[in-house]
Formats: sequence, structure tokens, C-alpha cells
Amino acid sequence: MSGLPETPKIPYGGDYNPEQWPEEVWDADHRLFGRAGIDTLTVGVFAWSLLQPAPDTYDFTVLDRILDRAAAEGRRVVLATGTAALPPWLARAHPEVNRTDFEGRRHGYGQRHNFCPSSPAYRRLSTALAGRIARRYADHPALLAWHINNEYGGACYCTLCADAFRGWLRERYGSLDALNDAWWSTFWSHRYTEWAEIEPPSALTEHWRGPDHTAFQGLTLDYRRFTTDALLGCFLAEKEAVREHSPHTPVTTNFMGMFRPLDYHRWAPHLDFASWDSYPPLDAPPTRSALAHDLMRGLKDGAPFWLMEQTPSTTACRDVNPLRRPGELRLASWQAVAHGADAVLYFQLRASRGACEKYHGAVIGHAGRDDTRVFREVAELGRELAEAGALSLGARTPARTALLFDWDSWWALEMSDGPSRLVKYLDVVHDYYRAARAAGADVDVVPVTADLDPYDVVLAPVLHLVKGDLAARLEAVAERGGTVLTTFLSARGDEHDRAFLADVPGPLGPLMGVRVDEWDSRPAGVTGRVRLGADEVAARLVFEIVVPVGAEQVGTYLSDFYAGTPAVTRNRFGERGGEGWYVATRLDDAGTDEVVRRVLARHGLTGPYADAAAAGVETSARVTPDGTRLLFLLNHAGTEATLTAHATGTDVLTGKRYEKGEPLVLDPLGVVLLRLE
Amino acid sequence: MSGLPETPKIPYGGDYNPEQWPEEVWDADHRLFGRAGIDTLTVGVFAWSLLQPAPDTYDFTVLDRILDRAAAEGRRVVLATGTAALPPWLARAHPEVNRTDFEGRRHGYGQRHNFCPSSPAYRRLSTALAGRIARRYADHPALLAWHINNEYGGACYCTLCADAFRGWLRERYGSLDALNDAWWSTFWSHRYTEWAEIEPPSALTEHWRGPDHTAFQGLTLDYRRFTTDALLGCFLAEKEAVREHSPHTPVTTNFMGMFRPLDYHRWAPHLDFASWDSYPPLDAPPTRSALAHDLMRGLKDGAPFWLMEQTPSTTACRDVNPLRRPGELRLASWQAVAHGADAVLYFQLRASRGACEKYHGAVIGHAGRDDTRVFREVAELGRELAEAGALSLGARTPARTALLFDWDSWWALEMSDGPSRLVKYLDVVHDYYRAARAAGADVDVVPVTADLDPYDVVLAPVLHLVKGDLAARLEAVAERGGTVLTTFLSARGDEHDRAFLADVPGPLGPLMGVRVDEWDSRPAGVTGRVRLGADEVAARLVFEIVVPVGAEQVGTYLSDFYAGTPAVTRNRFGERGGEGWYVATRLDDAGTDEVVRRVLARHGLTGPYADAAAAGVETSARVTPDGTRLLFLLNHAGTEATLTAHATGTDVLTGKRYEKGEPLVLDPLGVVLLRLE
Amino acid sequence: MSGLPETPKIPYGGDYNPEQWPEEVWDADHRLFGRAGIDTLTVGVFAWSLLQPAPDTYDFTVLDRILDRAAAEGRRVVLATGTAALPPWLARAHPEVNRTDFEGRRHGYGQRHNFCPSSPAYRRLSTALAGRIARRYADHPALLAWHINNEYGGACYCTLCADAFRGWLRERYGSLDALNDAWWSTFWSHRYTEWAEIEPPSALTEHWRGPDHTAFQGLTLDYRRFTTDALLGCFLAEKEAVREHSPHTPVTTNFMGMFRPLDYHRWAPHLDFASWDSYPPLDAPPTRSALAHDLMRGLKDGAPFWLMEQTPSTTACRDVNPLRRPGELRLASWQAVAHGADAVLYFQLRASRGACEKYHGAVIGHAGRDDTRVFREVAELGRELAEAGALSLGARTPARTALLFDWDSWWALEMSDGPSRLVKYLDVVHDYYRAARAAGADVDVVPVTADLDPYDVVLAPVLHLVKGDLAARLEAVAERGGTVLTTFLSARGDEHDRAFLADVPGPLGPLMGVRVDEWDSRPAGVTGRVRLGADEVAARLVFEIVVPVGAEQVGTYLSDFYAGTPAVTRNRFGERGGEGWYVATRLDDAGTDEVVRRVLARHGLTGPYADAAAAGVETSARVTPDGTRLLFLLNHAGTEATLTAHATGTDVLTGKRYEKGEPLVLDPLGVVLLRLE
Repeated sequence: MSGLPETPKIPYGGDYNPEQWPEEVWDADHRLFGRAGIDTLTVGVFAWSLLQPAPDTYDFTVLDRILDRAAAEGRRVVLATGTAALPPWLARAHPEVNRTDFEGRRHGYGQRHNFCPSSPAYRRLSTALAGRIARRYADHPALLAWHINNEYGGACYCTLCADAFRGWLRERYGSLDALNDAWWSTFWSHRYTEWAEIEPPSALTEHWRGPDHTAFQGLTLDYRRFTTDALLGCFLAEKEAVREHSPHTPVTTNFMGMFRPLDYHRWAPHLDFASWDSYPPLDAPPTRSALAHDLMRGLKDGAPFWLMEQTPSTTACRDVNPLRRPGELRLASWQAVAHGADAVLYFQLRASRGACEKYHGAVIGHAGRDDTRVFREVAELGRELAEAGALSLGARTPARTALLFDWDSWWALEMSDGPSRLVKYLDVVHDYYRAARAAGADVDVVPVTADLDPYDVVLAPVLHLVKGDLAARLEAVAERGGTVLTTFLSARGDEHDRAFLADVPGPLGPLMGVRVDEWDSRPAGVTGRVRLGADEVAARLVFEIVVPVGAEQVGTYLSDFYAGTPAVTRNRFGERGGEGWYVATRLDDAGTDEVVRRVLARHGLTGPYADAAAAGVETSARVTPDGTRLLFLLNHAGTEATLTAHATGTDVLTGKRYEKGEPLVLDPLGVVLLRLE
Repeated sequence: MSGLPETPKIPYGGDYNPEQWPEEVWDADHRLFGRAGIDTLTVGVFAWSLLQPAPDTYDFTVLDRILDRAAAEGRRVVLATGTAALPPWLARAHPEVNRTDFEGRRHGYGQRHNFCPSSPAYRRLSTALAGRIARRYADHPALLAWHINNEYGGACYCTLCADAFRGWLRERYGSLDALNDAWWSTFWSHRYTEWAEIEPPSALTEHWRGPDHTAFQGLTLDYRRFTTDALLGCFLAEKEAVREHSPHTPVTTNFMGMFRPLDYHRWAPHLDFASWDSYPPLDAPPTRSALAHDLMRGLKDGAPFWLMEQTPSTTACRDVNPLRRPGELRLASWQAVAHGADAVLYFQLRASRGACEKYHGAVIGHAGRDDTRVFREVAELGRELAEAGALSLGARTPARTALLFDWDSWWALEMSDGPSRLVKYLDVVHDYYRAARAAGADVDVVPVTADLDPYDVVLAPVLHLVKGDLAARLEAVAERGGTVLTTFLSARGDEHDRAFLADVPGPLGPLMGVRVDEWDSRPAGVTGRVRLGADEVAARLVFEIVVPVGAEQVGTYLSDFYAGTPAVTRNRFGERGGEGWYVATRLDDAGTDEVVRRVLARHGLTGPYADAAAAGVETSARVTPDGTRLLFLLNHAGTEATLTAHATGTDVLTGKRYEKGEPLVLDPLGVVLLRLE
Repeated sequence: MSGLPETPKIPYGGDYNPEQWPEEVWDADHRLFGRAGIDTLTVGVFAWSLLQPAPDTYDFTVLDRILDRAAAEGRRVVLATGTAALPPWLARAHPEVNRTDFEGRRHGYGQRHNFCPSSPAYRRLSTALAGRIARRYADHPALLAWHINNEYGGACYCTLCADAFRGWLRERYGSLDALNDAWWSTFWSHRYTEWAEIEPPSALTEHWRGPDHTAFQGLTLDYRRFTTDALLGCFLAEKEAVREHSPHTPVTTNFMGMFRPLDYHRWAPHLDFASWDSYPPLDAPPTRSALAHDLMRGLKDGAPFWLMEQTPSTTACRDVNPLRRPGELRLASWQAVAHGADAVLYFQLRASRGACEKYHGAVIGHAGRDDTRVFREVAELGRELAEAGALSLGARTPARTALLFDWDSWWALEMSDGPSRLVKYLDVVHDYYRAARAAGADVDVVPVTADLDPYDVVLAPVLHLVKGDLAARLEAVAERGGTVLTTFLSARGDEHDRAFLADVPGPLGPLMGVRVDEWDSRPAGVTGRVRLGADEVAARLVFEIVVPVGAEQVGTYLSDFYAGTPAVTRNRFGERGGEGWYVATRLDDAGTDEVVRRVLARHGLTGPYADAAAAGVETSARVTPDGTRLLFLLNHAGTEATLTAHATGTDVLTGKRYEKGEPLVLDPLGVVLLRLE
């Protein structure tokens, strides 16, 4: 089985831990859930020590009651396997289940997400628990979906992991010769002659100044891949145990958006549906969340995902935890739906009384009130979601623009000694995503292995590594008339981060029609100037010096010794008017906007409300399984926005109909969900 | 026996380590002591390796000579037990005496304050040494007081401490059920089923990003309490060994003022008198030292304390170690006396020739001169103290304002995930202390268990935890007509830092007449505006949104979405005009001043020179055992201050008499000690 | 044998690792070397795992081919012993060869410079390899010089090192009494009674906040000396193994200029010639490189050194790695020659394909082109060096100004608790070096043990420790009419960093004619004012308060409570007009310039182009073995500089002759090498 849980409307609810409370509190909870339109409860995420208080003792009394009560109240449950935090007795009985950190320190019992993924004891006991839960609740009427573990992450550097890593390498490379070549180990006298000589890359071996400074990128890249696979192995073992008893209920685990430690593209095929927890940083622009939503939607080829967690009000884990201002929760929730969410869930429904998350926002606070501002906003949103019903469920995004997202490139770029530690993968990826969204384009954020046929435009910023047949597939985009854009620090290495023995940008050279002769790097405060059409824009951090080999100069450096040379180029490629665009420096927003709009305009992909984007209006399209076209209009500004309807449609949330050409007014932080005709 | 050492005048002198020098240097020392009016020597603080050069060898030859010489010269000795730094042989013979740090690393021999408080070897050998010293010198004519160990502090995370901690917990909680409930351990699957499963909270268990980031505050709070008690246990063991031979000489250990690691309120009952080492930071306002003095005076119910250490000129341990400017030493010394010090001592009398404190200021420098600026100022102060004689000894401070100081709240506030890591306990406590002092009030800084009957005003800023019957006792203050003030982030947790299952501010709600609906947190650079009477003041960091439940709105937010709602409230409580004031945000100095003056003015507690405080004039009252009223006038400004005498009195330091209403001129950094008539 | 390799011209080339490549790449390499004028190859630096793939297997096949090919192409080889990075098998077979770091963590295999210097296994295997290489290639026609290991550095804190350290101490001190006295161990109860009690000073023993915060400076100083000697022992063992088979070829190892961890003055006698790797930081002024060159030249009593590495274009290891702009490589290379370099070599000739240095600049990039900007500049410089031929080889610098450089003082100053952590040794040393160079003086940077007879002026800034007979030798300089200048924080300690029991500046007091009564320290942002002749200049960080004892007041504080007291003094000393100058604070550049020019002017040592220095023109003299006088004129500015020739001479690089008094125009970044007549 594979796919999303079947629900009559957008599921609404969130993490719920009644096991922390006496049952009279449960009564109050369900009363308040009713008032807030909450129908879905995520249960059991950290229940291991409750469910298995000793090696040979399982106790499902409380969990039975929780699910029975949910069923009785007509609510559905996303049931967790409860394996994301060890019970104390397990850590004591098997000290090796505790992780050894990057500094080489074996930890003692504590926190959560604290298990060694290579530990046989953990594997055995976690799958046993998952299996027992599945057996017991597979046919429970409240059951809606399986939630394996929680927010997988972290890494372990223990000797069990070292051994597992060696096995993983042996499988990957077959021979030490192949490995020595891939890692370029002759450098610094590292030619391995036994598999056992290989150590995990840590602060005690190949690293200095932390995880991003490594002597051997090939080794460190492989350890990150191994870690991804090792944790995935834990997931798969639990999933298998669940499947044995519950073959039809969809299985997920909650991801964390742009989470660097794990390559979610390696995981995606193994989930029935994707889900994720959205906690945008304090000062993040709305496009940062949007990028994450689109990345998560890209995991399963554009299928909808679940918003598994968000805060109704405030986080607790940051140095400064501001409130979501009035209206922001609603706006963020509809933004998630606009980008493909088929569920809207919170962490958490009732605030914990103690421990480190007790200040984390909750639908129900410590006083249990229903007249707080937060509860009122949650309940209001509950009503809206109920009114929207099933309309958007299963809808897909009709994007003709793709943005390539590649964990390997992310890792390689940010662990690179030279040219600049100041270039951050997400910053540059966001630059191009933001510009495309500001121009009104729907964007699919896809892995480098994705089918590129659906796209007219492929944006590939800081695509540091070019692997497999990607260069050929990008050329194919241009050959059929499409446009491919890439940037500085792209195509610098192969899958092992070995330099191509060719002009930069290596295999993308023919498509781009340039060679990069050298690259300058400047401190954060130094600004270069670039002429771009009639405009002069700013550039920073890295300045590649480009020699056109067929390409046309679109932008020109105006400063430093490379003044007059190209900063942006475009290259005709193929017989059908396709183009390769190369941006040789980190342009400011105005520059990126100008380049991306020109690329999108070639294919008619700028949106009807692109001019309003600067003022904060985001648009996002979805097409439902029956072909209904939905257009979400989201006003991120604190002031009213007045648009002109580009087509006729009806706002699902208010019932108001807009004729094409009529004024369409968005309130501050307002949302309109147009069902187009 | 309990109480202060009996002396004919304010003892003057300080730490003295003649064991580092040949005896001809001792001659010079005593000559110079005579010139400086120095009569009191703290001896033997780090003498262990000298006194016990091997496990079975004690050698008191040098110490005998030091004490005999002191006696011969008519000087008195504060004799240390010498146990604050291990001798090398002990660390080698018993490696487990070396501490294991927060990172889980067992240390090797080094530094000082380096012993595991749970080590049986340390306990045995340190008490043996203390006992031998006490036996030998109990009746020495030079002996004035006992000085146990030195500046207790730090923590250990070894397995001995882990075991001791488990025993401490078992005693405190009785059962694991009680402990699981107190720590709210169901969160994150932490339900303990064996005492042995409990680990000290460290970087290897429950902590990340250092000691203030913990997954379980209940556990971390308890470890800090345990550490306090474990070190106190070391003190008590030594004290007992001393008492066996020396039942009548007062015992102390030197504290460090607002020292976060140890809850001195747990120690205070066990000291005969309090003493502390004052090293105010470079840029601290004079109220910071004053707060520390008042905190130390509060340890023993208002009894005088000893200033056990201060530098005559400069520290060495800071990145930048400025000189005390001319006059500053005198001013700081009299400030100590004004706040309750019955002794003025230095670290150190002669500068060390080597090791890390050789640049620390000393009365006698490396060249042994008596014509340095510093020596001249020390000698001048010596003369003044001799002239003041016994006048102020035993005097008490007639305060009607109390400020509650609570280590548990300090710890809980600063280890809290959310709402803001930027709120620091001491900053806010100092805000209110400073304002009260600037308004001319004498302030007792007292534990939350103190008898509150003597006070008209109780200030309880950021009282994060409310324990025991405190709420009732605060209500009692208002019931008899007094005023209680508390602030944002108060009454958020019980003794285990579990949230109250009630509106914020929990048990203080009835007294304050408000409920806090939610709380916003903003970055350091964001300033909110607040209307307070006719003034507009600034606010920062945390903005609680308050719903009055009976309280009157005194201050009003002018900015953000909560504009118009209360920022400051007051609530009539009880039949006698008592009030509860609630300040919902961190006001700037002007705002805090305005609030505190209004509170003090209700009770006639603003002082006669309050207007001069802004210009740097501090006043402080003491009443001697025979009822003489002393008023210290301290000018912290570099310019002259002209006051009008509020009462008739005579300056003890100059003999000048001031009639009430006459001008009273304070020199820059000047001091007047008025004996009022 | 001792001395420089004999070459017909300035050797040109650099590090070359053909073992990383198939042999067809070698063909391309040599073709490109020919085009660039490259004649010298540094080979085998990290070849251990290639040359000895297993404990009992040596394989010289590839190295044979590399050397044979070089010889066939007419190129010479600097042959490394290859011992700077362990092969994996060795680390696995002997885990104790891996270092234990300052945090007490035994490392696993990784990186380079990764061997414990006290490990018998490392010592045995590294010398065996060095011996085998020497035996095999001693008579190879390509062999030009021996290159032992590579960039020695780092430290180890393992138990083997602890034992070795104890042995080193026993030899140095003879008795624990002497050691206890030297380290002033009575402080903090540290009197050692067994050698075995002594621990290396680390984060687990005497240190906090890193390597510069120690409780016992004497111990930490000795551990740095021990580390210097331990690594030197590794060098000497390899050198001996090489010498056994190759008695006549010069031996070096590449230093790193102002590298704090190792006292190169202890090494210098053991090298046949000095060589170093120059990687000036991003924002360093040209005098920073010049200071390093002069320090390296001072290692062997003024003999020329080799520039063993520099980048042709960019580094990779820094956060921001800017390009050398056009012309900068040439200018930096000629600057090296101007200061005594007899070779100009690069790291690296061909860019590595993989691992952490793949972005490090190289003569030949990944694409193998000869038409890059960098290759063109390298080739152009190759032609110039060929034209200059042997002219400057063996030339010496005719300096009459010495600057004392002392690692012990550097260490002691920067590990000192008080008065200011903000004072950095190199900053102050550079202040005075820069000022002397800006005034046109050639400067020898020499150890404190150097013969001072050749010098009229001796600059001794922040000479924190004064050891041995140095004070007498400085007095001798003044006695014969010379000038000695020293500054604040000089002469504060003896060789163990024990304070002198005398007025500051201790043994320099008589020469300086002052005593320092006390010293103020201020935060970085606080500026003091100083009157110096007609000028008012700024001062920062440390302000010593000076009492003249015979000296004349040259500069005067204008601010703070010491306004009016001396900030700069000079003291007539001896019968021949000698002087001692004392600068009591850190003057700004203008102040330092003024003081240093006055000192130099007394002896006629300001240069003819001193006025042009402010505009960026550096001059440097060398005198060849046949007495030819060379004057290098280097324009560091980006604009043309017009001088007036001070003497008649011919530019060696262009053949142009300048008559005395004629205009002499330097291009932006231009170089003129005048052969004076």
C-alpha cells in the first residue's frame, strides 16, 4: 500500500500526550477539541517507557484508553511507534545504544533521538515494540496512519557504526583501490590497505573546527550518506514490523524540511506519504517556508504531504521565541495547504507541565482555557478548514519550473576548503526560489534524479556536484527549447567531490558556453557592482572570472580587476531555442530577480500577480483530482493589497465571486482561495 | 558558639602567604603592615602541600613561625584549613579526588578548587588536616577566626557523585513515583524504574549548549541543589573537625556574592558569620557591589559580615584589568562598611612572585616599596579605620524594604527553554534594587523563606519559582497594608519548575489581580513603548499580555499588537490598603524608577537624599548596638556634590558637625560618616 | 656540511605530487614547467603510504620514475622524507602514534602532522624511511636538497609525552626543589614531591579557556620548550639518518614564519639552511610578510633562506580566499628576494583533484591550461628570475638596526593573567618593525642571544622576559653609543616568568632610567592621548605609570589621572652618548613612527626614500658576496610612485640606468632592482 490516509476533510489536530495527565484532564481535552474542530490526534510519540517499563513487560493499558476514547469521540489517531526516545532501563542495560558523538564521547542516558542506529539491541527492541503496537492497534477504529519514530536525525561515531560503515563502503566500492581513487587518498598519505583502517570522520580523525572542516571530503560525504542509510535502516525495520500486522494503513515519519543531516531524497521512496514539521526561524521570509513545503512536496513526485507539526503560537527552543502575531497562524496554515499540505497539525495540543518544552506554544495552555487569543485563532481556523472540506485533498501543483535541490551538493559546498566559507547552500537556493516565486511561477523543488520533461525552466543554483547523467539530462531540457540556469560554484565536483579534469563548469560547460578561468572571493562586507541591462546591481562573496566560449554576455562586472568581463551569460543551445544561463557571482535580490524574470518570461511563466509579489502577495496554484483549478492568494503584508482578478472564480472561504478584471482586495495577512471557473 | 569575631576595631589586612618567601621578607612585611595599620592576616589558605608533604607526614614548622611572628607583632590571624587546593601527591595516590567535569572528562592534577566533593579520600584527608590544624592552633594567641577551605564552587560529575546524587534523591523523594512526577519524566520517555538509571545532568546526558540547556529542569535543579549540599558537606565535615578542638572561635568560609553555582542560603545557617570576596566587574555600577553586600548581610538575618577579600588596585584574571583610580579603594571600602561589613581585608598583602596571580594587585608589590600610590592609599585608609574604631561594629541596617533573592528562581529562569534566553536574573533583580536604592531606601536582600513582618515593601522581581507557603506570606504583607511587587516571568513554576495548572502568575494571581494570557519575546534590539503616568518609557525582551482581574492599569503598552493593554498594574488587596504591583515587561531605568518610587512613596520610604542619587550619591544607614544612628554618604561621582543636611550629625571621619539644613559638601569620590544626633 | 644548495640562478618551482596522477599527465607537466621557467621540484612530501604500503614493504618504483624524469628534463629535486603524514596501517598497528590533544583526547587516524613526537614506533619507522630514501637517492643527479618532514607543529599530551617531559625536566632542573622554586609552586599548594606527579599542562590539568590560560606559567612555558625540543628531536633523528648516506647535500625543513607553537631559534642551528612557507593573511600589510622574511633570515645569522612555498593565486584554508590580484604575485616574490630569499617556490605546481586542498591555487589547474592569467604571471616571473640569474644569490642585508624577537616572551606575554589579554605580541612587534621599515631602515630580526655588536639601534618591544645576560648586553649597546628601545610590559619576568623582585622594568631599569609604579589597562575602545613633541597621538590598552629615575620625559600622557606623567622617556647611558628609550603605552602608528624616527635619526639610519614609504614604497638592500650593492624598490601601492634616485644604478630587470638625482618612476605594484654603482 502506498499513498495518503483517506480523510473526508483536511485533518486538523496534532501531538497529544494524555499519558502525562490524569483522565479528568482528558475530558477537558476532548471538550476543547470539539470547540476547535480538532479531529486528528498524534499519539504515543514518546511513550516507550510507558509502554515497556521493563525488558520483558509491556503495558498497553493507558494507550488502549487513549485510542478508545479518541474513537468514542469520533477522532482519528496518527499512531507513533514510540521509539524516538529510549527508556532509561534500556540505556542502562545496553550502554552501547547511547550514541558516541562527533567529539568521540560516548553519551550516557539523556534527551531523545539518542540511539545508535547500528546498535543491535536498539534495532531488536525498537522493532519489537513497533510490531507489538501494530499488532494491537492495526484494526483499531481510530487508527488513521502510522508514525514511525520521530524527527530522525543526528549521527553516531561509535565502533559499531565504524564497523557498519566499513561494510557499507565495501558494498559501495568493492575494492580499496576504487575507494582510494574516489577519495583521492594519495593526498596526505592516506592510501588504505585494509578496510579496518578506515575511521569515521570526526573531531578525532579527519575534522577540525567542526563537521564542515574535513581533510577528505569523499570520506565525509560517504559518512553522511551512510548515516542517512543507517537511520533509514531503522525506519525500514520498524516499517516492516508494522506492515506485518497492518498492511494497509499508510506509514510516514515526520521530516524537518531543509534539514541538512539527512538526505531525504534517499528516504522518500520508502514512505507512503511525506510529512514534516514546520518551525520557520524568527526572521525568515515567507518564501523560506514555501521552499520547504515545495521541497517536501517534491519528495513524492508532487503528491500532497502532511504538515505534521507547527506551533500555534510560539517555539521554546530558540534564544528568542516571539509570538505568532494575530493572523499569522492562519496565514501560515493556508500557505502550507497552498503548497500541497493535505493536513494541518500542531505540536502540541496540550502544553507539557514540565521539562524543556513546557513553554512551547500549545492549543491548550496550562490553565486549560478556551478564551485565550491562541485558542480562538485555532478554533477559527478549525471552522475554515471544516468549510473547505475535501476540496483541496489530493490536489497537485501545475508547475513548469523546477528547482534542483541536492543534499550532496549542499554537503560538499559547505564542507569545502575554498573559495569561501561564507557561501551557504540554502541562501543561494533561496535566492533563486524567491525570485521565481516573486515572479509568480509555481516551482517544483526536485531531486537531481527527477524526470525533467515536465519543465520549461530548470534552475540549478550552486549545484556543486554533478553526478551521473545529469549534465545530459539538463542538455536535453535545452534541446527541446527549455532554459537551464546555473551559478557560480556549480559543477565543481563529481559524486566524490573530485574536481573534473576540465574547465569549470565541467560537464555543464557545453550547455553554458563558458569557461571559468579563476574565482575571486571577498569578505562579506565587500560589494562588487554588476551592470545588468539598464540596471546596476550588487554582487558579493564569490566572483568567478568567465571566458565566454560561445555564450553571450548578459551582465558585466563593473568593479575590480575583472571589470568588463561577464558576470551573467546566456548560451543558445540546440536547435529549438533552448538556452543555458550562467550567473558567475552572488547577485543581490534585484539582480537575481532580473535574471530569473528574463528566464521565466521566455516561457511565459511569470504569473498574473507578479507585480504584487514585491508588496507581499504570494500566489500558489493547485489542481484537484477532478481538474478543479484552485488559486491561493496569500497576503504576507500587514497592509491591505488590492489586485485585479486575472480570471473569474469564487473564494471558497467566503463564497464571494470575483469576475475577471474586478478588484480583489486582500486583507492584511489575508487569504483568498479562488476556485477558478 | 556563633557570631562574629570580637575585635576592638574594624579588622584590616588580608591574605598573607609568607610561606612563599624567606624569613627576611617577613621582617619587611611586618614593618610595612605597621605603616599601613594592618592588624589582621589571613594565613594558610593554600598551604596543604606545605603542611602535609606526604600522606603520613605533617610539618607545621613554617606555620608555627608565621603565627608566632604575628602574635609577637600584635597581629591577629584568620587561620585557613588549607584544603582548597590538593597537594600533588594526593591527586596521584587517589586519582578519583580529581573532578570529572561537565563534559564528562576526569581531570588530572591541576589548579585549585579541584576536589571531588564525594570523594572519601578527600573527605578523610581534608578533615584530618583541618583537625590537626585546629588542635595545634586552637589556643594560639594570634588566632581570631577559622577560615574553612576557600571560595567553594564548581561541580563534579564522576561516578562517586552520581552515586551520592542517587542517595540524595532517594532521601528527598522517597519513591521513584514521586521523582517521576516531580521531573515530569513521562515527557520524552524518561520514566525511571531504578534509582541506578539516573545520571548526573551533563553535556553527555541531558544537556546541550552548556549548563543552561537541559531537557529536564527538575533533574538539573536537583543536581545544583545536590552540588550545593555536597560542598556544604565538605565544609561541615571540616567545621566539625575544627570544633572538636576549638569550640569557641568563630568559623566562616569566604563566599563570592552573587555566585550562581551555590545556593548560599542553604549554607548560611552553618556559618558563625558570613564573609565574602568582592571583585566587581570592570563596568559595574556601584549598586552592583551594594546589592552583593546586602545579599551577604541577608545571609545571617542582617548581622554584619566580613569583607574577606578585595583588591587594593587591580585584578589579574580578567581580559582587561583596570586600576582602581585614586580614591576608589577608599570609597569601595567604606561602601562595604556602610552595607554591613565589620572587616576590610585584601587579597593580597604581598604579590606572588610567580604563577597566574602575580599581576593581581597587592598592598606590597614585587619591589617591596611603601611609596607607591597604592600603598599610600592603603595606609591612609588604615588610619581612617583606626580612627573610626569600634563605632560601627555590630551595627544593623534599619530597612523596611525587602528584595527577595532566590537561587532556585535564578537557576530555573536561566535554564529555561523559552520565552527568552536574553533575560538574566541578576539584571532584573539589579533593576529593582538599583531603583530602590536610587530612591533612598535601605534594602534587605533576603531569601524567600525570610520573615517578612519587618517590611512595608517587598520587591520580588523575576521570582520564577514560587515555593512552599510563599504566596500566602506575600499576601499577608499586603493584608497588613504593605506592598508587594513582582514582574514578568514570576510564579511560573513550583519547586520542581513544573508549571502551575492555573493562569499565570499562578499562586500570585489573587494578590496581583491579573492573569497573563500569553507572552511575546523580542530580540535585544527591539524596543517597545510604555505609557507610565505622564511619561513614555521603553521596554525590552519580554512582553506579557495581561488581562486585569481586578487590578488597575498603571502602565500601558503603546506599541505592537498589544498596544493599549496593561504593562504595569496595581491591585488593592486586603482591608488595610495593601497592594500588589505587577510589571509585565522589562522596563528601562526610567520606568523602573517611576514604578519603584511610587511603591516606596506609599510607605514614606524614599530617602532624604533621593534626588542626589541620580548624581551618584549613595546613602546607607546603620544602627549600632547601643542605638547610635549612623548615616553613610558616599559620592560615586567624580565631581563634588552639595547636599543639605537632613538632620544634625557629626562626620566621624573629620569631626565636622552639620546642623540640619546646612550645606553638606561631598568631595569627588568622597565619604561622610554622619553620627546622627 | 652546512649552507645553501648551490644553484646557477634563483631556483623556481615548487611542490609537485605526480604520484597522484597517471604518467601521461607528467608529460604535460614538464611541458608546462618548461614554458614557465620552472627548474626545481619539491617531491615526496606526503608519500609515505606510497613508499611503504605495509610494515615490511617498501616500493620506490614511482619515486624512481619521478626523479629520473626530473633529471631527464634537467630539473632539480628537493626531496622530502615523506614522514609528515602517517600511513593508515601505521596508525592502526600502533595507536599510540596518534596524538592526544590539549583536551586529553587520543585521536584516531586522520589528517597530517598527526604523530606523537615521543612515540618510539614513529621515531623508528620515520627514521627508517628517511634512511632508505637517503640511501637510494643520495647520488641521484636530480637531487638538490633534503626536505625533512613538513611544517612541524602541534603538540601531544599523551602519557608517552608526559614521561618524556618528566625526563626533560629532570635534566633541566636536576632537583624538584629547583623546579618548585622556578615554577613558584608553593602558590596554590603545588609543591611536587615526585617527578611522576607532574602532568602536562592541558585543559584537564592547569588550563582553562584554552592554551593561553594557565595556572602555572613556568610549567606551561616548559611544556612549550619541551614540545619544541621533542619535534626537533624527530627532525634530528631523520637528519642523522639522511646524513649517514648523504653527507654533503644541504638539509632543511620548511618553517612557517611567525609560528607561535615552535621556538625556531632552538631549531636554527640544526638546519643547513632555513626555508619557509609564506601565506600572509588576507588583510596583512606588506610589512607583515617582510617581518616574517627578516625573522627567517635572522635564523641563520643573516644567511639567505628559501621561500619554500607560496601560492601562485589563492589559498583554500581560510574562510575567505581572495585571489592575488594581477602583479601581486610578482611583487611578493621580489619582496621575498629583497629580504633574503635565494629561491622562489610554490605550493603547488599541479592542483590536487580531490581532498581539502583541491581549491588551493596551483601553477597548473585542473584543466591543465597554459593560458590562464595565473600561468601567464608565473611564466613571466620565471623569465625575470632567469634574467636576474645568480646576481642576488648569497647576498646579505647590511642592517644596523636590530629588532629582538623572542618566543619565550611571546608565550609568556600571551599566557599572562593580567594586565591585558588584548595585547598581542606580534601586533606590538610589528608596530616597531613597521615604523623602522617606513623610516627606510633595513632591520635584522634576531634572537635575544644574538651578537648585538653590529647594531646601532636595538628595538626590543614587549620583551616580556629578560633572560641570562641580556640586560648587560643591551647596556653594552648603549655604552658604545647605541640606542636601545623597549616598551610597556617588557622585563616583567625571568626565564620562568617569575617577577623580578625589583622595580619594573627589572634588569632594564638602569638602562631605561625609570621605574614603573603601576599599570592601567583599558578596554579596546578607550583611547588615551599622548603629547609627543608638537604632536598629539593616541594610545591604547596598557598605560604604565612611570616615575623617571634619571630619564628625560619625551612624551606625556594628556588624559586620565596620570595626565602629565611620562608616556615616553629617554635616558642617557654611558659615556658615549648612548640612550635607553622607554615607551610606556601602546602608541598609534603616528606615535610609534615619531619615536622610531627620532631613534633612527640619531644614528643616520633613516633611508633615502623614507618619505615615499607612507605612499607604499618599500626599499630593501642586499650586498652580494662580491660586494655589489643591490637596492630593491617595491611599490605596494596601486598607483605610480615617482622618486628621485638617491644614487646612480641600473635596474637589473629592465637594464635602465638611473643617474643620481634623476626621477625614478615605479609602476603600480612595480619593482625596480637597482644594481648601485
